[in-house]
Amino acid sequence: MAEKILMKGNEAIGEAAIVAGCRHYFGYPITPQTELTEYMSKRMPQINGVFLQAESEVAAINMVYGAAGAGARVMTSSSSPGISLKMEGISYIAGAELPSVIVNIMRGGPGLGGIQPAQSDYFQATKGGGHGDYRTIVLAPNSVQEMVDTTILAFDLADRYRTPVMLLGDGALGQMMEPVEFSPPNTKQIAKPWAATGLRGRTEPNIVNSLHLQPEKLELHNIHLQKKYAEITANEVRYEELYTDDAELIVVAYGITSRIARSSLEKARSEGLKVGMLRPITLWPFPEKPLAALAAGKASAFLTLELSAGQMIEDVRLAVNGAKPVHFYGRSGGMIPSTKEVYEQIANIFKGKEGR
Amino acid sequence: MAEKILMKGNEAIGEAAIVAGCRHYFGYPITPQTELTEYMSKRMPQINGVFLQAESEVAAINMVYGAAGAGARVMTSSSSPGISLKMEGISYIAGAELPSVIVNIMRGGPGLGGIQPAQSDYFQATKGGGHGDYRTIVLAPNSVQEMVDTTILAFDLADRYRTPVMLLGDGALGQMMEPVEFSPPNTKQIAKPWAATGLRGRTEPNIVNSLHLQPEKLELHNIHLQKKYAEITANEVRYEELYTDDAELIVVAYGITSRIARSSLEKARSEGLKVGMLRPITLWPFPEKPLAALAAGKASAFLTLELSAGQMIEDVRLAVNGAKPVHFYGRSGGMIPSTKEVYEQIANIFKGKEGR
Amino acid sequence: MAEKILMKGNEAIGEAAIVAGCRHYFGYPITPQTELTEYMSKRMPQINGVFLQAESEVAAINMVYGAAGAGARVMTSSSSPGISLKMEGISYIAGAELPSVIVNIMRGGPGLGGIQPAQSDYFQATKGGGHGDYRTIVLAPNSVQEMVDTTILAFDLADRYRTPVMLLGDGALGQMMEPVEFSPPNTKQIAKPWAATGLRGRTEPNIVNSLHLQPEKLELHNIHLQKKYAEITANEVRYEELYTDDAELIVVAYGITSRIARSSLEKARSEGLKVGMLRPITLWPFPEKPLAALAAGKASAFLTLELSAGQMIEDVRLAVNGAKPVHFYGRSGGMIPSTKEVYEQIANIFKGKEGR
Amino acid sequence: MAEKILMKGNEAIGEAAIVAGCRHYFGYPITPQTELTEYMSKRMPQINGVFLQAESEVAAINMVYGAAGAGARVMTSSSSPGISLKMEGISYIAGAELPSVIVNIMRGGPGLGGIQPAQSDYFQATKGGGHGDYRTIVLAPNSVQEMVDTTILAFDLADRYRTPVMLLGDGALGQMMEPVEFSPPNTKQIAKPWAATGLRGRTEPNIVNSLHLQPEKLELHNIHLQKKYAEITANEVRYEELYTDDAELIVVAYGITSRIARSSLEKARSEGLKVGMLRPITLWPFPEKPLAALAAGKASAFLTLELSAGQMIEDVRLAVNGAKPVHFYGRSGGMIPSTKEVYEQIANIFKGKEGR
Repeated sequence: MAEKILMKGNEAIGEAAIVAGCRHYFGYPITPQTELTEYMSKRMPQINGVFLQAESEVAAINMVYGAAGAGARVMTSSSSPGISLKMEGISYIAGAELPSVIVNIMRGGPGLGGIQPAQSDYFQATKGGGHGDYRTIVLAPNSVQEMVDTTILAFDLADRYRTPVMLLGDGALGQMMEPVEFSPPNTKQIAKPWAATGLRGRTEPNIVNSLHLQPEKLELHNIHLQKKYAEITANEVRYEELYTDDAELIVVAYGITSRIARSSLEKARSEGLKVGMLRPITLWPFPEKPLAALAAGKASAFLTLELSAGQMIEDVRLAVNGAKPVHFYGRSGGMIPSTKEVYEQIANIFKGKEGR
Repeated sequence: MAEKILMKGNEAIGEAAIVAGCRHYFGYPITPQTELTEYMSKRMPQINGVFLQAESEVAAINMVYGAAGAGARVMTSSSSPGISLKMEGISYIAGAELPSVIVNIMRGGPGLGGIQPAQSDYFQATKGGGHGDYRTIVLAPNSVQEMVDTTILAFDLADRYRTPVMLLGDGALGQMMEPVEFSPPNTKQIAKPWAATGLRGRTEPNIVNSLHLQPEKLELHNIHLQKKYAEITANEVRYEELYTDDAELIVVAYGITSRIARSSLEKARSEGLKVGMLRPITLWPFPEKPLAALAAGKASAFLTLELSAGQMIEDVRLAVNGAKPVHFYGRSGGMIPSTKEVYEQIANIFKGKEGR
Repeated sequence: MAEKILMKGNEAIGEAAIVAGCRHYFGYPITPQTELTEYMSKRMPQINGVFLQAESEVAAINMVYGAAGAGARVMTSSSSPGISLKMEGISYIAGAELPSVIVNIMRGGPGLGGIQPAQSDYFQATKGGGHGDYRTIVLAPNSVQEMVDTTILAFDLADRYRTPVMLLGDGALGQMMEPVEFSPPNTKQIAKPWAATGLRGRTEPNIVNSLHLQPEKLELHNIHLQKKYAEITANEVRYEELYTDDAELIVVAYGITSRIARSSLEKARSEGLKVGMLRPITLWPFPEKPLAALAAGKASAFLTLELSAGQMIEDVRLAVNGAKPVHFYGRSGGMIPSTKEVYEQIANIFKGKEGR
Repeated sequence: MAEKILMKGNEAIGEAAIVAGCRHYFGYPITPQTELTEYMSKRMPQINGVFLQAESEVAAINMVYGAAGAGARVMTSSSSPGISLKMEGISYIAGAELPSVIVNIMRGGPGLGGIQPAQSDYFQATKGGGHGDYRTIVLAPNSVQEMVDTTILAFDLADRYRTPVMLLGDGALGQMMEPVEFSPPNTKQIAKPWAATGLRGRTEPNIVNSLHLQPEKLELHNIHLQKKYAEITANEVRYEELYTDDAELIVVAYGITSRIARSSLEKARSEGLKVGMLRPITLWPFPEKPLAALAAGKASAFLTLELSAGQMIEDVRLAVNGAKPVHFYGRSGGMIPSTKEVYEQIANIFKGKEGR
């Protein structure tokens, strides 16, 4: 077993990317993800990798496009406003079916907003903030160790499905220090016979492109993409359940919010409230089936917790599909609810239920 | 009554903006909206307005930000990939609460995709393709006259609610020629005492900003925004119903798709199939209540029609909330279904229903 | 006679541009010219003009290109590093033969250098820092009133010769406050039948372009440009002479340096040293003939004074053409010589001469 | 001795850079240098080097700045308009005293001009097209082998003097195929203890910067730069003389023009005309002393030949300093004089001389 090291979340993502074989990083600093950019600027030269602070976030994502097209394991990272600037590029990369990893350490918005943690880019990440029918796999770790593991997973999924994968964190997780261990370095990566690397003995060049001027061809391409997305949805849903067996109330929360929720749950449980939690690890594909199953079972209500004005709740409601009420509690702008605050939300729902 | 003129959709939007008092346009050409940019380049100099073809879509939306902050009625336009580049700017404008009008003449995606009509930017437009909890009013006309009317409405709503408003069209509507009439020019506009225009006798300068570094303040700002969005949702939902009184199947379609659907409906009706249509004119706020009312009434099924892989269907499902099945039929990449094709979808659902 | 107003140099340039009929300004702030940008941001909206702070200096100069091509009187301004960014654009504007006014309030270089006054962009301004055989008229005022007068002159020369004109100032002149008067507003400007303003009754569109792919045509175009430059050289040389009639030593200095030199001269004269000064007002075309005449006359030596490591001295030497020795004294990086310091340079040359 | 290979000039520069140890290339395609960019895009991945096609020429030169600051041997290349865009960056690199190699394969200007060979960026290259008192060493090869040799030399000079070095070619040389041989790879490069590579055991970080806000410090920095430039001028002048021993007329020509001139000279010599040639290989530092020596000797006239309207002639006149007449013959816009044409220029000067 590898040695455990105490690391910040932002830096752990960087080291995990390197362990995953990433040797190309393109980014631009923005709080609260700057430490990741800085970490890569230090580490990449030591391992003969490429670190480039681009002219802008638009430039950075297009460098990711280029490097991914040439078959490299490549990453960029930013925080909310900077991620918005990457929307065109992400749509291009998805359209061209290139593997790449994009990290969003979310801060409060909209606009410049603030630099404290938030989860208000859920829609952008999961519905496709860019144009066209595309999806990115979205991974939402809730610990530093899981940041490591999902970063490595992100590269693997990206390669396997030839798709951009987004790692969605927030300023709190990025700053948090926890002991982590790294898997042994990934020595064998998937072959990329489609990469645009020059002929190398082939007679026809590989072409990486997202332009299909004939509508018939573009529709076929879109059907192909949708099949791939269906396959991902079938195979790659990841989530964690806690006390759901007998739970009357299911809390749904991800990332930093799920950690607070867990403490609140423990307190509620200690007072006899039958509350459980489903924590999505993949936000897309969303754990729709497990939620639907819970909605069809003992659960009589759901509570979505978010650091936003209510975004994931739409996916929860789509999963529950009217079978049970779905409550919402959110804070925003960098405000983080306390354990007590969430506990009270839980307790109130139970009181309300009793009241009916 | 004003004289009717035969105009292309793209040009009609431009003229309507001018009638609405818009004297500042910033954009960048991209098919299939280029004619709008071109139209503004011709007309603006004639009326002492400002037309500027910016260095990029990112530059253009930030010029909109600036002009809107100074109190001008201002517009930009683009097509899908170009709109993705504006995501950061739109979030800034929403955060700073500035009125502005953004036109998206959608083409097939993702990536460069194609140049034929599509409706695959629905998520981006309605869920906020940018970061943070913000919304833009989204208007989806389905005729050249309605493009005129909703463009003028867009400027009025933008000013009234201090919010960006998106006009969502597609290449088919943009190219379509129909007779239109223009309302008399808007001579009195709403006052903008908040605009950053220099002191002008005030003692304190107006500040236009989207940065709120204190989480408490940013949360208050977000609560304020959410109240405004709730007010818009309460007041500004617009839609058209057709044959819904006795309909067993409700087709939901917007823009160009609603025109095809209408013909298919007529055919289905002529054959005794009780089908109706709800056509959202505002995609956000979405006509959730009327759909919920239909779902609670005679309608036994819904059919969402889109030029996408299925995006608006989520809002339809959220409105219906599990009360009735919601079917989907979509084409993509610039492919447009025929009247017959849609009719068959309708007929199949009726057959399926009988078969159950 | 107009009333005299006390104004800063930077602001006086702005107001003079407006008096000259300039209604389009595109720029980006940089010390020490920011006050000019700021002044235009205030004044332009008051007179229905266009002020736009561009995304970058590159963007600004290309907006100048566009507005000039449409026949507008247009200005941009910056300081040294920002002017370097405009080099491509200035070459384009010169190649396309468009009138425009570019202001460089020089600071110390190279690189970011400092923000204090300098004259180290002489080569860039006069030899063409951009590519290709082109010239810009370069005007170098040495008082706030002359900044006003040469700004107005700059617009007139630009239109008359269809050429970019550069106004070369420095941070000291930009900050200096002196009383100025403005000529009555220019009400009639030169017609621009070549401007790309739409057909307006013509059968063929005007085309503004700097691309000539056939070498024969490009050479003809270059010959045409050189003829124009020869005509400018014949007609537009401007300079001031002081005590040159009997001078044995001719000081050559422009801009802020000429003001210091003048005081030093007075002191030297008061001590019987026969020293005179030729102050170029146009740096290109350079007053070559008057200098050559002085070199052929009583003058036995020349002293070039610059806030640089020696740039104008090359033009002085080319004019003198070996007939007499040309000395140099320069300070740099924002350091400005004192009157005494320059006097000593003068006195030393006289001593040296006696010693021969 | 190494094997001779037939290579195009553009590609030979690329390979020579690699032989010199260059592993970082940042550029943007533009005719007629695109083959160099393309060559680097193929070769760099094969040798674990970095090739990046930047967003723009401005971006590329700033990447050069970054890589050079970290101690890498780094190159960029472009053609005339693209080089103009790099002017700010080159001034920064010169100010920060960083080694780097910039290739300009000149095309006709000004503006977009044409894509045929020219020499009209001489002023820009030698006088500093950017702002401030700086110089770049400028090397002007006239054969493919010399392109190889001067490219390798460029990297060595850049490192030795910590200065940007420009390689000035033209489209004709870039396209020309000739046999070349490469020196054995440079295995030991100069140490760069000043590079910003992280602490690496030092207690103070290395800082790379061109900003010196105190005028006193900036002036000292400029004095230091001028000393360095004087040292380069003393040590690094390179040129070739041909038949100058007894020549009455000295032709001065560089690059492609010197090849034509050589043929014309042979013809003139065969007819008894005593004509010689001085071919500058370094344009800066310019071979001023050898020219002055010739002017002080048997030569009774000089003829400057350029593919421009007359730029190098200023340096020739400064060197000759009025001692002898300096004639000029130039073509421009991509037009190249024939051997006969140049011969006639030579013959005419001899006739004119007899006629006097």
